Amino acid sequence: MESYQNPPRDSWRGLCQRAMSTQQPEVAETVAEIIDNVRRGDDTALKEYELKFTGARLTSLAVTEAEIAAAAGEVSDELKSAIATAIANISKFHSAQVMEPVEVVTTSGVTCRQCQMPVDRVGLYIPGGNSPLFSTVLMLAIPAKIAGCGRIVLCTPAGADGKVHPAILYAASAVGVTEIYKTGGAQAIAAMAFGTESIPAVYKIFGPGNRYVMEAKQQVTRYGVAIDMPAGPSEVMVIADEKAPIEFIAADFLSQAEHGPDSQSILLTCSAGVAAALPAEIERQMSSLPKQELISRSLEHSRVITFDNRDEMMDFANEYAPEHLIIACEDYEALSRKVRNAGSVFLGNFTPESAGDYASGTNHTLPTSGYAHSYSGVNLDSFCKKITFQHITPQGARSLGPAVEAMAEAEGLMAHRNAMSLRVNYNLR
Amino acid sequence: MESYQNPPRDSWRGLCQRAMSTQQPEVAETVAEIIDNVRRGDDTALKEYELKFTGARLTSLAVTEAEIAAAAGEVSDELKSAIATAIANISKFHSAQVMEPVEVVTTSGVTCRQCQMPVDRVGLYIPGGNSPLFSTVLMLAIPAKIAGCGRIVLCTPAGADGKVHPAILYAASAVGVTEIYKTGGAQAIAAMAFGTESIPAVYKIFGPGNRYVMEAKQQVTRYGVAIDMPAGPSEVMVIADEKAPIEFIAADFLSQAEHGPDSQSILLTCSAGVAAALPAEIERQMSSLPKQELISRSLEHSRVITFDNRDEMMDFANEYAPEHLIIACEDYEALSRKVRNAGSVFLGNFTPESAGDYASGTNHTLPTSGYAHSYSGVNLDSFCKKITFQHITPQGARSLGPAVEAMAEAEGLMAHRNAMSLRVNYNLR
Repeated sequence: MESYQNPPRDSWRGLCQRAMSTQQPEVAETVAEIIDNVRRGDDTALKEYELKFTGARLTSLAVTEAEIAAAAGEVSDELKSAIATAIANISKFHSAQVMEPVEVVTTSGVTCRQCQMPVDRVGLYIPGGNSPLFSTVLMLAIPAKIAGCGRIVLCTPAGADGKVHPAILYAASAVGVTEIYKTGGAQAIAAMAFGTESIPAVYKIFGPGNRYVMEAKQQVTRYGVAIDMPAGPSEVMVIADEKAPIEFIAADFLSQAEHGPDSQSILLTCSAGVAAALPAEIERQMSSLPKQELISRSLEHSRVITFDNRDEMMDFANEYAPEHLIIACEDYEALSRKVRNAGSVFLGNFTPESAGDYASGTNHTLPTSGYAHSYSGVNLDSFCKKITFQHITPQGARSLGPAVEAMAEAEGLMAHRNAMSLRVNYNLR
Repeated sequence: MESYQNPPRDSWRGLCQRAMSTQQPEVAETVAEIIDNVRRGDDTALKEYELKFTGARLTSLAVTEAEIAAAAGEVSDELKSAIATAIANISKFHSAQVMEPVEVVTTSGVTCRQCQMPVDRVGLYIPGGNSPLFSTVLMLAIPAKIAGCGRIVLCTPAGADGKVHPAILYAASAVGVTEIYKTGGAQAIAAMAFGTESIPAVYKIFGPGNRYVMEAKQQVTRYGVAIDMPAGPSEVMVIADEKAPIEFIAADFLSQAEHGPDSQSILLTCSAGVAAALPAEIERQMSSLPKQELISRSLEHSRVITFDNRDEMMDFANEYAPEHLIIACEDYEALSRKVRNAGSVFLGNFTPESAGDYASGTNHTLPTSGYAHSYSGVNLDSFCKKITFQHITPQGARSLGPAVEAMAEAEGLMAHRNAMSLRVNYNLR
């Protein structure tokens, strides 16, 4: 863990640098080859990749109704009830994001309207591996359902036994997603981008994954498919005052660290006491956790930065633009009003990041690596686009017309001018 | 112009194909080299490129206050008044898009909030060439100002005389944008992405351009910079009934065609009469327009498609997902409710696309090439991101805690579980 005191502003850029893995040409090449193979459109390429990467020998890619029904029997009642709580909260918050049409009469006879419309077909990618990310199923599928997306396709790799983790199937079916295919990695992204025999092409692809998945998402954007956002390693910034319980801060650092060796945790504080106490408390808690080696590696690039000036501290936070920002301060409300760049913000001492990761109602698919400067986390908008409509009456055309004609002419677009003039001068019968 | 009658559904995909220029490796290589050169950070590379591409010998890239003041003197009063009308309408419609914070108590003691925040620094690119796109200055700068973007940088190439077109400078200063730099093409995009001596780096880049500009925008997204949207040739779809004045439809086709040889216009109609009358009316109007050769080339890939069934016609429109959709039908209101995919929609006979291109109030930076399936046109959101906040009380932590703990454990994330448990079990003093 590195420590800094009042770092000068010209050092901030360096301090905000993420442990970004550099682009690896061999990853790009491998992914381009996978895309080419999947693009041919039959399922054979997908089945071969699944056999190669996971050992699963699949005759059919689609998860059957029977498999979904069986999965429900393998999920504990405790977990079912937890998932129900998460669904209720996530649904409530994302339903509140539904936008009423905006309608404005900009000039007499000229009415403009903006409406939110769903993306017709979306694809959700859920990685396999040891941690079954069923929470991500909820975070993506619930807003997709609320938005009204007509077709929601979910791809996730099966294990070597050809089965998808039951918690993933249960979470998907609990929110009404039943079109699930057993394929993972870059090949799953390619399948959803171009469509294959059994998997439909979608217009937008969501979800986390390893570097191959991320590279594939970047590459398919070149072919007209949209993606949720670019992604990097997860990160948390904690802003704490002297009253913040040190065990909470340590626990938040550790929970970030268990995500992976590239994860980053940063403490900003005006309290020398808090800064000094953190390392020992982390050591103490770590001893009772699994994955200690992973956590230790991740903590190597965590940082503790103390500031004498609170405004400067908040400026630094905004420059960093953290994915997760925990404000563990008594006056969290005042400080929250200074937040300009962050993915999701956790206010006060009793609001751990884990609450938002799972069940408070906010989304956990968030911009990392400083992308919070310009990207939103996944929200209802992510599954919609906004379409504008306008209507002009004959009288509106006459009053707006001269402005349109003058501007079109000044841009040298005489046919544009003419299209307006014909309406202005039309003899209404 | 090609004609089709009731094309079968399995032919729609082909009919919806755009005249997309295939990716050219030499464009990608040239752009990558330009990016590398500009990335070094001094202004020399930019000045050399401007000399090479436009012939302008620049000592300083920044447009001076004196140049802006002088430009105002070169713009006619008629155009100033037209620009004022456009500013008023665009401002009114985009101001109405400001979002109030969404706040929801998802569970007793758990409050979630979503707020719209501006992107701190944005870059607007305005191409040079024969048509001074001052209307695009308005379409990008007005929502940026309303969003509250702290710094708005505008790049546009100077002519060989080292001057920027006065209408561009006037439009920019009329909406309060005064940080303007004389640079164009891929080098301007690179400058805004990485920053140079005189040009600040921004977080998001907007605006149209040629294939080098588009390629540069795509490439800089790999370095953490966001862009408005991918772009292709402009296009219009007109849906007309038998009462639609044929001269209006022809004028709309011609105004689309003058954009460039790749532009596409498509008529959908249930009226054989309208379909039959269009070509002659286009010929008639074209004779009095400039740029006839360009227009003729563009019209080669325009299409007239007749349908017997209106629902099928609307399905086709949604499959095509036009950038601009004109519904020149008496019952435009009913038909507009069937629109699921489009950039901007023009309702009725007196609402030409040119009105929205300049002054009705809607934005003219819109998704082309079928991107309207998943992308919105530029709107207030484009200059903002949405940040979520959450606050949990000690009691809220106790009631939400068990769900979070169960889910974290099921995902194998024990430190996540622990961060929640510590709050649940904390002995409040």
